[in-house]
Amino acid sequence: VPSSFEERPPVCCSQVQLGFRYESRDQRFTLYVMQLSNCSALCLPAERKVYVRSAVLPCVETGRCLFRTRGSLPQDVVEVNEVFSMQISHGALRQKTLRVDVCNTSKSGHEGCLAGAQISLADVSCSEERCTKWYNLLSRAHARDTTKD
Amino acid sequence: VPSSFEERPPVCCSQVQLGFRYESRDQRFTLYVMQLSNCSALCLPAERKVYVRSAVLPCVETGRCLFRTRGSLPQDVVEVNEVFSMQISHGALRQKTLRVDVCNTSKSGHEGCLAGAQISLADVSCSEERCTKWYNLLSRAHARDTTKD
Repeated sequence: VPSSFEERPPVCCSQVQLGFRYESRDQRFTLYVMQLSNCSALCLPAERKVYVRSAVLPCVETGRCLFRTRGSLPQDVVEVNEVFSMQISHGALRQKTLRVDVCNTSKSGHEGCLAGAQISLADVSCSEERCTKWYNLLSRAHARDTTKD
Repeated sequence: VPSSFEERPPVCCSQVQLGFRYESRDQRFTLYVMQLSNCSALCLPAERKVYVRSAVLPCVETGRCLFRTRGSLPQDVVEVNEVFSMQISHGALRQKTLRVDVCNTSKSGHEGCLAGAQISLADVSCSEERCTKWYNLLSRAHARDTTKD
């Protein structure tokens, strides 16, 4: 019964702002983790710091593919502004998928990821310019919706 | 030791070609599941049909958000060419994430998903024209790389 869709106010989702740049000369891919917005939608525990974990997948055994930002106490907008880079050919990069997750650490030291985005890097251009975009974050709880019919 | 990256021939990844269209007049979002390429990279069991499962998440209780294509025996290129649509406001759609998985069914009827892509719909335009793109598929096994450090 899709007619009730329009009457619902849109539930605001949280987002992450990312930037990408590929420099052909150095065969270097740079990821800019810029900010998180509308974090209150994620219902984060106030006393526990959150950080962004980024992974360029599939991971190559010989290289580093996993990056974590420093932790910040959750606010509606979290300014991250951290930069990570890795050396990779453009052809190899275009076969990768970037997975970005908002995580925190429990008292026992266990990493928990609350929401994430996944971005196909098939279109990463080598224009040398930084391309910046906002991506919706899907909470882990909602990602499990696919197991229901 | 990232210097060994360049010597590796790129491992070809499998991809899915999707199309999107949003019609403002009818508040209708249409998803075109067009084809899969390079499926051999997924090492699919030859005798078991594969299909594409698409979900617009978070799912709204009242509407249908999960679509499955018919099954096809795995080949390197699988022509799917199926169309699904749902009624949703543009504002609500832009808060959604599309999850697309390549799945098969075991003899016991259990659905298994082998690889997938996740697409933030924050940028879906309402230009009325179909926008078509290839997305890298990340295998479930590689997606678990993020749990390692």
